[in-house]
Amino acid sequence: MKMKISPAEGKLGILIPGLGAVATTLIAGVEAVKKGISQPIGSLTQMGHIRLGKRTENRNPKIKEFVPLANLGDVVFGGWDVYEDNVYEAATNAKVLELGLLNSVKAELESIKPMKAAFDKNYAKNLNGTHVKQGTRYELAQQVMEDIKNFKEQNGLDRVVLVWCGSTEIYYEASAIHQTLAAFEQALLDDDKLIAPSMIYAYAALKLGIPFANGAPNLTVDIPALIELSKETQTPIAGKDFKTGQTLMKTILAPGLAARSLGVHGWFSTNILGNRDGLVLDDPDNFKTKEVSKLGVLEDIFKPEENKELYGEIYHKIRINYYPPHGDNKESWDNIDIFGWLGYKMQIKINFLCRDSILAAPIALDLALFCDLAKRANMSGIQEWLSFYLKSPQTAEGLRPENDIFKQLIKLENTLRYMMGEDLITHLGLDYYEEVYAEA
Amino acid sequence: MKMKISPAEGKLGILIPGLGAVATTLIAGVEAVKKGISQPIGSLTQMGHIRLGKRTENRNPKIKEFVPLANLGDVVFGGWDVYEDNVYEAATNAKVLELGLLNSVKAELESIKPMKAAFDKNYAKNLNGTHVKQGTRYELAQQVMEDIKNFKEQNGLDRVVLVWCGSTEIYYEASAIHQTLAAFEQALLDDDKLIAPSMIYAYAALKLGIPFANGAPNLTVDIPALIELSKETQTPIAGKDFKTGQTLMKTILAPGLAARSLGVHGWFSTNILGNRDGLVLDDPDNFKTKEVSKLGVLEDIFKPEENKELYGEIYHKIRINYYPPHGDNKESWDNIDIFGWLGYKMQIKINFLCRDSILAAPIALDLALFCDLAKRANMSGIQEWLSFYLKSPQTAEGLRPENDIFKQLIKLENTLRYMMGEDLITHLGLDYYEEVYAEA
Amino acid sequence: MKMKISPAEGKLGILIPGLGAVATTLIAGVEAVKKGISQPIGSLTQMGHIRLGKRTENRNPKIKEFVPLANLGDVVFGGWDVYEDNVYEAATNAKVLELGLLNSVKAELESIKPMKAAFDKNYAKNLNGTHVKQGTRYELAQQVMEDIKNFKEQNGLDRVVLVWCGSTEIYYEASAIHQTLAAFEQALLDDDKLIAPSMIYAYAALKLGIPFANGAPNLTVDIPALIELSKETQTPIAGKDFKTGQTLMKTILAPGLAARSLGVHGWFSTNILGNRDGLVLDDPDNFKTKEVSKLGVLEDIFKPEENKELYGEIYHKIRINYYPPHGDNKESWDNIDIFGWLGYKMQIKINFLCRDSILAAPIALDLALFCDLAKRANMSGIQEWLSFYLKSPQTAEGLRPENDIFKQLIKLENTLRYMMGEDLITHLGLDYYEEVYAEA
Amino acid sequence: MKMKISPAEGKLGILIPGLGAVATTLIAGVEAVKKGISQPIGSLTQMGHIRLGKRTENRNPKIKEFVPLANLGDVVFGGWDVYEDNVYEAATNAKVLELGLLNSVKAELESIKPMKAAFDKNYAKNLNGTHVKQGTRYELAQQVMEDIKNFKEQNGLDRVVLVWCGSTEIYYEASAIHQTLAAFEQALLDDDKLIAPSMIYAYAALKLGIPFANGAPNLTVDIPALIELSKETQTPIAGKDFKTGQTLMKTILAPGLAARSLGVHGWFSTNILGNRDGLVLDDPDNFKTKEVSKLGVLEDIFKPEENKELYGEIYHKIRINYYPPHGDNKESWDNIDIFGWLGYKMQIKINFLCRDSILAAPIALDLALFCDLAKRANMSGIQEWLSFYLKSPQTAEGLRPENDIFKQLIKLENTLRYMMGEDLITHLGLDYYEEVYAEA
Ligand SMILES: NC(=O)c1ccc[n+]([C@@H]2O[C@H](COP(=O)([O-])OP(=O)(O)OC[C@H]3O[C@@H](n4cnc5c(N)ncnc54)[C@H](O)[C@@H]3O)[C@@H](O)[C@H]2O)c1
Ligand SMILES: NC(=O)c1ccc[n+]([C@@H]2O[C@H](COP(=O)([O-])OP(=O)(O)OC[C@H]3O[C@@H](n4cnc5c(N)ncnc54)[C@H](O)[C@@H]3O)[C@@H](O)[C@H]2O)c1
Ligand SMILES: NC(=O)c1ccc[n+]([C@@H]2O[C@H](COP(=O)([O-])OP(=O)(O)OC[C@H]3O[C@@H](n4cnc5c(N)ncnc54)[C@H](O)[C@@H]3O)[C@@H](O)[C@H]2O)c1
Ligand SMILES: NC(=O)c1ccc[n+]([C@@H]2O[C@H](COP(=O)([O-])OP(=O)(O)OC[C@H]3O[C@@H](n4cnc5c(N)ncnc54)[C@H](O)[C@@H]3O)[C@@H](O)[C@H]2O)c1
Ligand code: NA
Ligand code: NA
Repeated sequence: MKMKISPAEGKLGILIPGLGAVATTLIAGVEAVKKGISQPIGSLTQMGHIRLGKRTENRNPKIKEFVPLANLGDVVFGGWDVYEDNVYEAATNAKVLELGLLNSVKAELESIKPMKAAFDKNYAKNLNGTHVKQGTRYELAQQVMEDIKNFKEQNGLDRVVLVWCGSTEIYYEASAIHQTLAAFEQALLDDDKLIAPSMIYAYAALKLGIPFANGAPNLTVDIPALIELSKETQTPIAGKDFKTGQTLMKTILAPGLAARSLGVHGWFSTNILGNRDGLVLDDPDNFKTKEVSKLGVLEDIFKPEENKELYGEIYHKIRINYYPPHGDNKESWDNIDIFGWLGYKMQIKINFLCRDSILAAPIALDLALFCDLAKRANMSGIQEWLSFYLKSPQTAEGLRPENDIFKQLIKLENTLRYMMGEDLITHLGLDYYEEVYAEA
Repeated sequence: MKMKISPAEGKLGILIPGLGAVATTLIAGVEAVKKGISQPIGSLTQMGHIRLGKRTENRNPKIKEFVPLANLGDVVFGGWDVYEDNVYEAATNAKVLELGLLNSVKAELESIKPMKAAFDKNYAKNLNGTHVKQGTRYELAQQVMEDIKNFKEQNGLDRVVLVWCGSTEIYYEASAIHQTLAAFEQALLDDDKLIAPSMIYAYAALKLGIPFANGAPNLTVDIPALIELSKETQTPIAGKDFKTGQTLMKTILAPGLAARSLGVHGWFSTNILGNRDGLVLDDPDNFKTKEVSKLGVLEDIFKPEENKELYGEIYHKIRINYYPPHGDNKESWDNIDIFGWLGYKMQIKINFLCRDSILAAPIALDLALFCDLAKRANMSGIQEWLSFYLKSPQTAEGLRPENDIFKQLIKLENTLRYMMGEDLITHLGLDYYEEVYAEA
Repeated sequence: MKMKISPAEGKLGILIPGLGAVATTLIAGVEAVKKGISQPIGSLTQMGHIRLGKRTENRNPKIKEFVPLANLGDVVFGGWDVYEDNVYEAATNAKVLELGLLNSVKAELESIKPMKAAFDKNYAKNLNGTHVKQGTRYELAQQVMEDIKNFKEQNGLDRVVLVWCGSTEIYYEASAIHQTLAAFEQALLDDDKLIAPSMIYAYAALKLGIPFANGAPNLTVDIPALIELSKETQTPIAGKDFKTGQTLMKTILAPGLAARSLGVHGWFSTNILGNRDGLVLDDPDNFKTKEVSKLGVLEDIFKPEENKELYGEIYHKIRINYYPPHGDNKESWDNIDIFGWLGYKMQIKINFLCRDSILAAPIALDLALFCDLAKRANMSGIQEWLSFYLKSPQTAEGLRPENDIFKQLIKLENTLRYMMGEDLITHLGLDYYEEVYAEA
Repeated sequence: MKMKISPAEGKLGILIPGLGAVATTLIAGVEAVKKGISQPIGSLTQMGHIRLGKRTENRNPKIKEFVPLANLGDVVFGGWDVYEDNVYEAATNAKVLELGLLNSVKAELESIKPMKAAFDKNYAKNLNGTHVKQGTRYELAQQVMEDIKNFKEQNGLDRVVLVWCGSTEIYYEASAIHQTLAAFEQALLDDDKLIAPSMIYAYAALKLGIPFANGAPNLTVDIPALIELSKETQTPIAGKDFKTGQTLMKTILAPGLAARSLGVHGWFSTNILGNRDGLVLDDPDNFKTKEVSKLGVLEDIFKPEENKELYGEIYHKIRINYYPPHGDNKESWDNIDIFGWLGYKMQIKINFLCRDSILAAPIALDLALFCDLAKRANMSGIQEWLSFYLKSPQTAEGLRPENDIFKQLIKLENTLRYMMGEDLITHLGLDYYEEVYAEA
């Protein structure tokens, strides 16, 4: 039985707090794709297929032809930043895309000018932008809501989603004011410094029933107050931290080792990157936010408490080094010390010459499109099926997050099948071999 | 509903054609495990857990406690080889395990002396062993059957399985005599050179209703004649080529890239190894067998015909180099040229300092134990659910082999759940979030 | 006492058989440098300094300001090829340099059109060019001499040098006709197929007293007949095989290991490249020429016969793999198995993401300029001091080639000092510490 | 003319402050070599040859047969430590050498018990040893002198040298009390905390005319006061920091890049190690000492002020990470961003799976033997010719240290030739080609 999903009619606004490397790479790319210049590689919604039915049926439609997603042609971009560079200028500074490509969509990019940011320098000391709103946190939230409504009206939009692509905020944990919506709203009025800028955007969006996805490792929508609000306004949320680069690799490789019951003594991960994100992360307070987000994945996959002999002693260390010569070309090197049969040791070294924003942009796109789909399907609150895209996925209380990218993918695909009333896939397949076995 | 499975009572014989590096590492390891000296790391049957029911049920038994497998304490080893070294001597020559360990199980290993091999030097020119049977292929098959029966009787065994750990045979394809059981049996009588030695063992085993697993890349049980025989005698078969080292990595990483719709321009794989397997593979005819087995996996995972923009142009090259300084410490280096958003290029380099036989031994063990389980569960013919262990898995005609190790794992686990009457897992899990969704 | 050296007055012609990737990268680069667009990085003659006198004198002039070299502004390029593409077209096909750069020197490059080649397809089966001279080998040599004279006259040149940048020829060894000049000249008349095309150019140049340097691994000027001719006409020669990429690395690293008396068990070197050079080397006959040139260097540096305990057992293997995705971006991976104190083993892995022609072009330039200098200094025959640039350097009979790049550099620098009458440097330097020691 | 050198008669004591990983690996190794069990690989004095005269003379004696060094058979070891483990116990804890080897020299190692250390916990906070001397710094120095004299007498030694193998002390710079011997001796009396423990040993040795070499990166003998004392008592000194691992690699590779005028944008170096040295360096104060020692080498080799276009912008970053799974098997990974012709970029990645103490032990041995030689040759003060062994070599004031390992080697070898009255080698060698050139 198929779920009821409103059609993707009219235009979809994607509003982005933080028009930096990831956001501008996303926007420039979508504009280039619209013009037929480039391909949206790395985007499952645009490039991916999904298998339906039995293998012998040969049904493998593109995902975007299977579920009712917004067309790229109907997408309109906007956003906020603490710097007032338009998207063309910001993209040029980010040095991710070649000038040739940027120039082919120059007019489109120049026309997107950031709105003033809701900002607090205490949350990102290495930033010096002055293109910021004034007022208490409560007033900032009101202004952001105004921004959203104006943007929607001026662009004739049908629907909007927000995707946080702002800098990583300094490390903070949830405190009392983050526990209930009531406390949070009071804190807004009190201009309480414990409310991070990203939360102001999230609050504004959710209050308006607009989905919010968080690409950074700061808590933001991960707090009870905003989960409460998302349920109240029937709005999907997804967080946190785009899963790219080294962590992507980790959540691919670690499940492979675990599948084979290979033990792990240690995993050393180092990164070098030279973009603005790297500069912000050079501050230990901001790094800590990222580190916490990155450290969890191995534990969740290896479950050392259940697999003591294999993973009980694992030593996991992560380093991020600001290294300007590489710019946005983030590079990671991993040394993994594993052991097999009778405890014999082996090593795996992985050197990933990656491009950070190239990997992140399609994820931001997919999160936006799937959040919009979820909204139209009346799915609200935490969207665990979007874990696939996130380093530190949100789950219902009491559930351990699933970081194994392959389980995440099955979850995502079976969710789509479920939405569309197709059989879930279990890969059992005994029925191809013996009639006596039941179909599965 | 649970399947009917006979209990694992009495002793299980594991008989191995080819008592080389893999086989002796397996045998020495199991003996050490029995004595409590070592752990059977890398063996899913011994170390792995399986999740049952909903996540909140917290049911995660060990696999060996969930399905009725033979205990290691009940396993007895034997085998054939063209060299007459006993298992202690052969293990010492193989230089995989340290002398200290081997000496702690010396008596057990010395007592295992290879039976004379069914051999034809045309299938492995670099081997010079003389410990071989005489006679036509038909007679060799009869002798192998005698060997098996004697071994069973002398050791008071309840059941037997065969696992081919012999050298890789030269490249050959299925020809007319391999198409039907009748043609094959005639060819045995004709002593037809097109019947490879490994097929003689497989035929003998299947004729006796004994499961046969093939750890090498030669066809062996992959031919219609022997599939026919396996159905006739209700016997499970599994082939081919233990999935270890570089290919293991490939079938872990490639699904990850495909999951994220990342494109691949090229994949260059090189290997250096210096053991006897490497020496045999230094002959181009034997290398070809291995190459064909290894080359297929990317195509099956990436499905270039469906994903032209992403994988239509992939250039895949594999090299195996005999390099004595490394002995059994096979090492692989992979360079993978990928592309993402808008076609931007990235690279992944993987250097795996692996130990070939250490990875292969637990696979041989698991295949033996699961084949025995399948036999007791009345599952016969191709066991696709054991693809997890194989580089080039057998499937029903018309079905594309599944090389994605994560789909293989789900297939294996859901098969076990199915056998035991537990719910299959789909990872949907929407029910944790909204009461309106059905349980899945 | 200074040597007598004629000044570098007037124009210097650099004539190149083989206007492929290396040659066009050289030419485009020099033109860009002349225009002030780029820097001749990698060229010791243009960028390098040389220390003179005692350290405390602080005399470190640029080499080009110390010895009388031709100015780049006075250099004129020409050449031959079997394809008739002009240098702009050939450079575009080679895909080494970006179009932006090539277009900035388009006019200059388009004006250089290859003369017809002296060619024999048996020496490079993978080439299909038809822009070739007709006639016997003797006649071809005459035509090449005519080409040189015409080129000199038409361009108002004072001096000319030839640098072979043609494809690697198939493997051949010196035979009887290569032993004396008389035999060689007779063989020319006989159109003897044992005379390789590259030798025809070398003969023509030397006959005219024009220096010849060989950038490929084929013998060419390495044969007694042409050494004899070089002495007769008082002409410098230098060969063979530009030292770039992996071999460059090897001759840097191996001396370091030898310096520290660290042992080496094995050295495995693999390369992937996808340019036309790679295509030619995909033919085993051409690969052999390269392999022989590359294999020698370790032996010459480690001297296993003298250092049996350290290098007596070294296993050295080199692989070159044609891998189109990388184009001219040749990449090498080396695994080096070393051992130290008490025989304990260690490993070094080197992954060089190199650009082949970018490394070769400045070497071709330096060889041309230094050969011209040598000619003006009346140095004739083998120029051992140019070993620095070559994978397989020529030496006087009976002398072992020196492959240690650091000894090669001292030799080169001390030769320049010697030419200019400066003190040779021994790095003794005891005189900085104690008056009693003599100056050194 | 040969220098006057006293013969190496009688026994040589090597006394070592710091009986940790390096020292015990050295001692166990020498004892094993004495018994003919192992080879002193990595030691130039024991394994290396030196070329004498012209190449055609074929004179290549072993260094130990060329210069009059102490025989290993005449060497006696002793030392101090803050822990009272004997050398067998300490070596066992260090986990560098296999038990099999250690047991074969167990008696010899057990008999060496550390003397109480001159220690101050402020200089190494992560150490908790209690086997320490009591008293003011002046008194400690007296006690160390007593220790040395007793050791010499009890063992019937002819000569003694000291080699510091103690932990890296926290970072400090030379202050007023380190400037003159008078000030230093006053500070000893004042028990001034600015005198580091290592300086107490150095002072004691030099006062007795005993050579002192410093294997750690702390200043120690690098201060004017102790240089003054070394001249006064005619004693050789050598410092500082054994050149092993990553820095060894750097001083091999960087000269190779500089030789070829290849530019460098960045050099990122990371290390993982898990031994006690790593634990000490995990304290930022101690790490700083190491970092300063390691950072200098590139600057000294590339001379950015002279080579602005090539090395003016180099970004050099070094990380040391405590990573227990690797123990003494220190591993380094370097990413080097280079550029060549016209500024085109290339990358080099080096992964060195090294064994720290295995590389350091033979250096400690050579420094001891060469310092003893220097003493007998009446060479006093700074021994610049031993730079070859040191990360941060001492030089005469006003002289830039030479870090290029190849220049260091020539300096060392020409010093030996000079001592023995042999011709210095310049590698000119023109005389092999033309009679007209003078011999060189
Ligand atoms: N692969 C990736 O690139 C990747 C992966 C995972 C997560 N992320 C996260 O995505 C975020 C964006 O990454 P990026 O590389 O684009 O960084 P960036 O530094 O290029 O861009 C971030 C932008 O956010 C702006 N900003 C900061 N605070 C703001 C605020 N309160 N309101 C509005 N704008 C604000 C900054 O001025 C900046 O322009 C970071 O948090 C990063 O950690 C990126
Ligand atoms: N990781 C791995 O080690 C790995 C992975 C995949 C597949 N395999 C395959 O497993 C097989 C065994 O590998 P290995 O490393 O143990 O090789 P090995 O060379 O050490 O052992 C093979 C043994 O088989 C024997 N043999 C050959 N033909 C025989 C015959 N007809 N009858 C009886 N004995 C015969 C040989 O004498 C030899 O002792 C090879 O085919 C190899 O390709 C190994
Ligand atoms: N780093 C390097 O690129 C490098 C290093 C060492 C040596 N080399 C050698 O330098 C040579 C040139 O390398 P490349 O990359 O430019 O190769 P390329 O294939 O791009 O160019 C070689 C050119 O030589 C031409 N040619 C072949 N035979 C000829 C003949 N008889 N007369 C005239 N032209 C002829 C070919 O048509 C081709 O255009 C090769 O021999 C290569 O092995 C190159
Ligand atoms: N490759 C190498 O191993 C290498 C290379 C360069 C430099 N070094 C330096 O050599 C030194 C020794 O390295 P290690 O790996 O043997 O370290 P280690 O920690 O194993 O040994 C150092 C020993 O010195 C002792 N010690 C500390 N202070 C002392 C004092 N004041 N008096 C007497 N003993 C003292 C400690 O108790 C310890 O046993 C370190 O400074 C290290 O940085 C080592
Ligand atoms: Na690091
Ligand atoms: Na290879």
